[in-house]
Amino acid sequence: MRFTAQKIADFLGGSIEGNVDVEVTGISKIEEGGNETLSFLANPKYENFLYTTNSSIVLINRNLKLQKAVNCTLIRVDDAYKAFATLLELYQQSKVAPVGIDKMSSIDTKASLGKDIYIGTFSIICKNAKIGNNVLIYPQVYVGENVTVDDNTTIFPGVKIYSDSQIGKNCVIHSGVVIGGDGFGFAPQTGQDHQKVPQVGNVIIEDNVEIGSNTTIDRATMGSTIIRKGAKLDNLIQIAHNVEIGERTFIAAQTGVSGSTKIGKDCLIGGQVGFAGHITIGDEVKIGAQSGIPSNIKNGAVVQGTPAIDLINFQKSSIVFKLLPELRKEIINLKKELEEYKKDK
Amino acid sequence: MRFTAQKIADFLGGSIEGNVDVEVTGISKIEEGGNETLSFLANPKYENFLYTTNSSIVLINRNLKLQKAVNCTLIRVDDAYKAFATLLELYQQSKVAPVGIDKMSSIDTKASLGKDIYIGTFSIICKNAKIGNNVLIYPQVYVGENVTVDDNTTIFPGVKIYSDSQIGKNCVIHSGVVIGGDGFGFAPQTGQDHQKVPQVGNVIIEDNVEIGSNTTIDRATMGSTIIRKGAKLDNLIQIAHNVEIGERTFIAAQTGVSGSTKIGKDCLIGGQVGFAGHITIGDEVKIGAQSGIPSNIKNGAVVQGTPAIDLINFQKSSIVFKLLPELRKEIINLKKELEEYKKDK
Amino acid sequence: MRFTAQKIADFLGGSIEGNVDVEVTGISKIEEGGNETLSFLANPKYENFLYTTNSSIVLINRNLKLQKAVNCTLIRVDDAYKAFATLLELYQQSKVAPVGIDKMSSIDTKASLGKDIYIGTFSIICKNAKIGNNVLIYPQVYVGENVTVDDNTTIFPGVKIYSDSQIGKNCVIHSGVVIGGDGFGFAPQTGQDHQKVPQVGNVIIEDNVEIGSNTTIDRATMGSTIIRKGAKLDNLIQIAHNVEIGERTFIAAQTGVSGSTKIGKDCLIGGQVGFAGHITIGDEVKIGAQSGIPSNIKNGAVVQGTPAIDLINFQKSSIVFKLLPELRKEIINLKKELEEYKKDK
Repeated sequence: MRFTAQKIADFLGGSIEGNVDVEVTGISKIEEGGNETLSFLANPKYENFLYTTNSSIVLINRNLKLQKAVNCTLIRVDDAYKAFATLLELYQQSKVAPVGIDKMSSIDTKASLGKDIYIGTFSIICKNAKIGNNVLIYPQVYVGENVTVDDNTTIFPGVKIYSDSQIGKNCVIHSGVVIGGDGFGFAPQTGQDHQKVPQVGNVIIEDNVEIGSNTTIDRATMGSTIIRKGAKLDNLIQIAHNVEIGERTFIAAQTGVSGSTKIGKDCLIGGQVGFAGHITIGDEVKIGAQSGIPSNIKNGAVVQGTPAIDLINFQKSSIVFKLLPELRKEIINLKKELEEYKKDK
Repeated sequence: MRFTAQKIADFLGGSIEGNVDVEVTGISKIEEGGNETLSFLANPKYENFLYTTNSSIVLINRNLKLQKAVNCTLIRVDDAYKAFATLLELYQQSKVAPVGIDKMSSIDTKASLGKDIYIGTFSIICKNAKIGNNVLIYPQVYVGENVTVDDNTTIFPGVKIYSDSQIGKNCVIHSGVVIGGDGFGFAPQTGQDHQKVPQVGNVIIEDNVEIGSNTTIDRATMGSTIIRKGAKLDNLIQIAHNVEIGERTFIAAQTGVSGSTKIGKDCLIGGQVGFAGHITIGDEVKIGAQSGIPSNIKNGAVVQGTPAIDLINFQKSSIVFKLLPELRKEIINLKKELEEYKKDK
Repeated sequence: MRFTAQKIADFLGGSIEGNVDVEVTGISKIEEGGNETLSFLANPKYENFLYTTNSSIVLINRNLKLQKAVNCTLIRVDDAYKAFATLLELYQQSKVAPVGIDKMSSIDTKASLGKDIYIGTFSIICKNAKIGNNVLIYPQVYVGENVTVDDNTTIFPGVKIYSDSQIGKNCVIHSGVVIGGDGFGFAPQTGQDHQKVPQVGNVIIEDNVEIGSNTTIDRATMGSTIIRKGAKLDNLIQIAHNVEIGERTFIAAQTGVSGSTKIGKDCLIGGQVGFAGHITIGDEVKIGAQSGIPSNIKNGAVVQGTPAIDLINFQKSSIVFKLLPELRKEIINLKKELEEYKKDK
């Protein structure tokens, strides 16, 4: 595939500065660009690369003022990052998706299958599972009894989905994800082994959710563990029984959410954060990486630390933490001096 | 299945307040209850739901004093939570377990198989493995050479068990668990790639252990990594080589235990805790989430923080941490004032 | 296999104290030794075991001065730990590696296969994948399109390798590892579900790398995520898109590295450490467990804490953290006393 600057600018609604006929065949980062590649510049931090890049075409924001001359052809758009993402997606879509049901898969006769689906080698679809249209199920996947997977969802190799789970439309679920394992529930019994509390609920994943590799989402004890529409979960995240993650909330890798906690919509949650159980996090909350959240958080709060406090407070206190040995000496000195005054007096 | 309040009360040894003939067909949380469902109330925090629930029957503790009238039928028992767990288990057991050996599994001719077992599609049982009676091995599981899996144990889809591991009776092992991978052992060699130390030990998991999804338990360098009877491990936990976890100890998700550390019995360990290697943790120790444990801990200690200190101390110090910028200013002010006195003097 | 002390000493270039004819058939830890086993003592902390062990032969450092008489035969070598590791490796190599292509595997006709390889049951090799010589691919592995796996590499059961990934020579990849999953990249869109940024880069793993169970390594957005020669990654680690890990760097379990961060060579990184994105860590850096790294670190630095500071500073400040409630009281007292002076004055 070859595209001219003119063709790309027309598609993106952008304006060209430079050679309208220059052609590209691939994409690259601006600092790694070469002949016939297209790049973008969104973060002003990287503006220097614009003047040295070997990329043939660079997408930039409409309002960017150039500091120097450039060697490449520029296409100005409203949001260079988004425009680039759109191009990437086109590029991706141009790859042919697999289709058909591999003869070395195992499909129960009571499973229901949509149109134009792919089921890969050594994958298993159990009794009463329902697979929607255009679903891609890569090899070695396990889809348990009564599971539903709705239209246009992609499930990568080796995902395990326990019985009764529901997966929405347009979801992407990466390798090694486990959906619907038992919640961690036991009735303690002194001096004996603890009694397992059967976990009879399920997991519901709504539309447009993406779940990263090896993340685990436990089924509810009763009722449902719910990942709301448009939420994005990174790798190696733990979602316990009866948790609810709000719409469009982002969670970075290795964060853990304990049982029955509800997180609001449009939150940004850093990596390695831990949430206590049975708490409620508001909407549009931002939580710094490695924070520990012991209690409820209000809408719009921005916090960090273990236990988490206001972000600015955390940053200021962290600076003083570094000085603590010194401060302690000063307190000891002050005490001594005051005692000497007492004597003098 | 339909059950009357009378039938349930007889089974649990409970006493009824209300309609002995009311029937239930399912179970639910008290706040989500509907017609013909049974719920329970154990935590006084949720007592309000008792007066508003739509559940038909609610199990409560024998000694609970009602504040208002209720609409539902009550069954009073010694421990409402345990009674409910017992009912849940009955409910669960009423589901038919799979049985038989799938013809698309791979069983070595030198493996030994017990009675009434299930081996699912695309599962593999290697040479000299021994599978006990009533064992359920779900699809896509790997059971390596010389592995033993004792009676009544359930292994969910996709578990990987390396050679020589031993799994006890009545264990539950969830999807994505890896048992017996190599310990992280290398002999450093300056300026060259480090030399791998072969890991020739194994993993022993005793009876009644449950292990959550995607948890990893490494084999011992020599000897055994041991998970003792009745221990319960949540999801995404890391157990390094030669670790020993004591009887009935609970470990919450994403905790990591470094090589050769021994944890006692009846401990409660929060999520995302990290243990240094070669240390010893006593019995009945409680450790708050996200703690870092650099050294030995005595029996019965209750700790939190990185490095972990006494829990109450941690909580008090955390309050002062928040005030540090202010305290620093006060110290600076005190210093100034004292210096002025000096001048005056 | 039986070996005399003489044979072992000759092989290691060691000198014998005791019975040159004593024979061993296995290996064990010094504190668990028995008749006909060989052990080693490297850490002076465990020297007491030397005088009580039941092992028949113990490897010790050439310069160790005995405090008491021993019952075993000693072999003195320059480095007892390394010598033992060498013997372990021989022991390991004496086990016969599997070979051949299982007939219940699935190999694309356009895949290229080297000599003397093993491909296990239910494993899949996709189109245009290239497998080198002496590669061991255990059961239930997925090797995606265009993946290369170079000579002498071992891939344990259930590993998933997405398309376009490159794996070097002599690597060891443990069960449940996911290589090449999509990076966590979305273009936020207020009030709508966020737009996925297609991830069109790949993962490159150089020679002599070991990767622990259930670790995840995401593909680059563009370009490559790179694990350099000789790096060793423990279990459950998260490596985000476009990260680079330097040569011979060790990373302990459950650490997470955010997008585009570069870590230098010969670093030692503890468990549960978190790295922010887009930062650069120098060579020979040491980072304590559970640290949070928000910004660049220079060559040779030794740090701990969240945010990480100089290790000694962290340890001193942690001691004062414990004393904070007390220090606060002292500040309040000092203030009161000073105010009383003011009044008096």
